[in-house]
Amino acid sequence: MIFTAHITIMPLKELLDPQGKAVNESLHKLALQQIQNVRIGKHITLSIDADSKEAAHQIADEACKKMLYNMVMESYSIVVE
Amino acid sequence: MIFTAHITIMPLKELLDPQGKAVNESLHKLALQQIQNVRIGKHITLSIDADSKEAAHQIADEACKKMLYNMVMESYSIVVE
Repeated sequence: MIFTAHITIMPLKELLDPQGKAVNESLHKLALQQIQNVRIGKHITLSIDADSKEAAHQIADEACKKMLYNMVMESYSIVVE
Repeated sequence: MIFTAHITIMPLKELLDPQGKAVNESLHKLALQQIQNVRIGKHITLSIDADSKEAAHQIADEACKKMLYNMVMESYSIVVE
């Protein structure tokens, strides 16, 4: 069966996110002062051929650990559907 | 009230995603052949000061249209909580 995994990878809360900060300031210049705490990460979708949802989740987790995320600077979450 | 908006911006399905393709091939080399159709986009979180969830959604939508997404190449979705 083919499952779709949605992986969200964000910079850790403890770390500065210079890209997010720059976007935050630019949004303020566009008269969107209500916006704060912009943080920018990655969203990755994958199709996974697996026997069960759990197996697909495990494969996505392995992909994150082996390649997709940087454990020093980022955290990730996976939703399989 | 402060709301948190989660914005997901992905390359349009009709377009090639060279970054996703490169990651797909690398994952295959790491013995994760079950994975296909890797697509890589952005995930942005914002705090929004607004009177209601609907107002916060509207502000996030305005931010997307004014700056965050490229209408030629990307689509976006917003979840406010």
